[in-house]
Amino acid sequence: MSYERESIRRMEGYRYGEQPDDPEVVKLNTNENPYPPSPAVATALGAFDAAALRRYPPAKSDAFCRVAASQLGLTTGEVVVTHGGDEALRLAFTTFVDPGAVFSMADPSYSLYPVLARVQDCRIESIPLAEDWSLPADFSARVNRVGARLTCIVNPHAPSGVLLGVDTLARIVGEIEGVVLVDEAYVDFVNPALGHDVTPLIREFDNLLLLRTLSKGYSLAGLRFGFLLGNPNLLEPIATKTRDSYNQDLLAQTLACAAYADGTYARRTWQRIRDARDLLLQGLVELGFRAPPSQANFLLAVPPADWAIGAHSIYEQLRARRILVRHFDTPRLGGMLRITVGTPEQNSLLLDALREIGKGDHAAQE
Amino acid sequence: MSYERESIRRMEGYRYGEQPDDPEVVKLNTNENPYPPSPAVATALGAFDAAALRRYPPAKSDAFCRVAASQLGLTTGEVVVTHGGDEALRLAFTTFVDPGAVFSMADPSYSLYPVLARVQDCRIESIPLAEDWSLPADFSARVNRVGARLTCIVNPHAPSGVLLGVDTLARIVGEIEGVVLVDEAYVDFVNPALGHDVTPLIREFDNLLLLRTLSKGYSLAGLRFGFLLGNPNLLEPIATKTRDSYNQDLLAQTLACAAYADGTYARRTWQRIRDARDLLLQGLVELGFRAPPSQANFLLAVPPADWAIGAHSIYEQLRARRILVRHFDTPRLGGMLRITVGTPEQNSLLLDALREIGKGDHAAQE
Repeated sequence: MSYERESIRRMEGYRYGEQPDDPEVVKLNTNENPYPPSPAVATALGAFDAAALRRYPPAKSDAFCRVAASQLGLTTGEVVVTHGGDEALRLAFTTFVDPGAVFSMADPSYSLYPVLARVQDCRIESIPLAEDWSLPADFSARVNRVGARLTCIVNPHAPSGVLLGVDTLARIVGEIEGVVLVDEAYVDFVNPALGHDVTPLIREFDNLLLLRTLSKGYSLAGLRFGFLLGNPNLLEPIATKTRDSYNQDLLAQTLACAAYADGTYARRTWQRIRDARDLLLQGLVELGFRAPPSQANFLLAVPPADWAIGAHSIYEQLRARRILVRHFDTPRLGGMLRITVGTPEQNSLLLDALREIGKGDHAAQE
Repeated sequence: MSYERESIRRMEGYRYGEQPDDPEVVKLNTNENPYPPSPAVATALGAFDAAALRRYPPAKSDAFCRVAASQLGLTTGEVVVTHGGDEALRLAFTTFVDPGAVFSMADPSYSLYPVLARVQDCRIESIPLAEDWSLPADFSARVNRVGARLTCIVNPHAPSGVLLGVDTLARIVGEIEGVVLVDEAYVDFVNPALGHDVTPLIREFDNLLLLRTLSKGYSLAGLRFGFLLGNPNLLEPIATKTRDSYNQDLLAQTLACAAYADGTYARRTWQRIRDARDLLLQGLVELGFRAPPSQANFLLAVPPADWAIGAHSIYEQLRARRILVRHFDTPRLGGMLRITVGTPEQNSLLLDALREIGKGDHAAQE
């Protein structure tokens, strides 16, 4: 017999991208940073005394909160550490959305959002994005009309990489009556020339949460370290009630401090990734692909219309060549590939493989 | 304005034991193992390549599942890794108890249970333990009468340390209609001469979950590593739907494997703690304290009736001497102290301090 709740029995779990054991695979499918974490992480690891693990860790990751607050010009009360960005998202549901209440999101977005909504038994208001992946003009109105308690906006947008500017975001957050979580998982890759900085808005709006993670920008997907920024009153129930009391281990806290304090190193990787992104986009366009302008570390690429094979076949042919990209089997995304920006060498291997696949395809047609 | 759910606004969060920064404190308040983790943990730490943190970790902690299954004579499908025991408990609520449905527990128990029940909006059926901390004869009947979807039984019991035998447990699990989670956080400290082993029951009962943690027995409270054992069908929705997809970081997975594989080292610490537990109990009894027979790494001590000061004052006087024990401010536990078994040296310091406090107290009375 089944013991799980009926709503859990009916739902499907989150499907994460493939994590192959083979280190030779060119892995451009889960938006990892292609560069290793700061050398300060290895140093902190080397200096760590395993005996310290005997005791419970600082419950609120105080040292990291101090580092983050200092880097961002905030107070420690405006920071709550989470076990990766995923815990931050889950806690937003647990804390703000009653079972049966409404959660709203733009569609498509990070595919974990509806999974978490179903676990919390929420109703989902899914609002289609415009053709250019921007929010529709009536987004806030629709969110308010259904009384959404929580709205998640991933910015830069996933899977397109398109960036919503601070002014637009401020207007939307001001209009929306419930909590707005802006998922900034990819914000580190935004061109600094744009001066994009949403953090001051947390002091202007008491309903705004910003999600950050060390997974991408700080090359620490393996460490599971994220955090939320917001008004202390908004964060308080998460910090003191809904969060697991010890939600970060001592070692992760130590390494996260080291990585986040070394912003200089991280920023160099971001610049290299932006440079590689430009070259990758150029290479794809030369092959006949199209992709929206991305401020993230991935591109959403539409294959040339004159290729006989579509995105899913290209994905499979790349996979046979041990190059992994991501294909989402949905009506709107099924004709596209989400490609993580790798090192220049990895991107060249991808472009070479695509060129071959394209040629083979034309040959097959003749 | 408040944005959190009304039920969250009304509830109180979990109160964890004090975690002082001062390394000189004699810390007997949160049931940590007084010995460091296995040297294999330090070795694994030294061999770990920080660059590996760049990628997402194995989502299901496969290597640890293999080690645990092998040590316990189970299959990997009978093991699900969690972020400490606390995540295992939270997931039991999320997966099996609908909001508004009933959760049942013995009272007193681990004080996190009712907190998690409130976060999930469950009703709580709290069934008082007998005077000797055993379950009342009508426990299963009461659980079934209220239709509890989940029942948590901590065994050895916290905060008393009293052990429920396998036969009694098997009878109760067989009688109860919902899911039974047996929280074995302290099971490693049970005297091996008792032959206490509950794991075979997971193949007999499809409604039984066993919770294990590396926090206590393996000296890794700082690492946040726990796991659930159970029938694969019972575990499946946790493994694939309600769990955060990447709920353990790569480093924790690596160190947990090293620690759990070195059972020989861990068992030596358990024997030392049992020996120290016997001596500590003897010392407390000589001072006039009483405590039930404990199979855990703590004692629930009742101060001598002829002392003018009670448990809370003793707790405060110990604290002033930089010795931390735990006091729970509830009607049933308010007259007792929960004392973690430390090293023989730590236990002697505690007994010396208690002797002084007792004398001072008598002097004050004269």
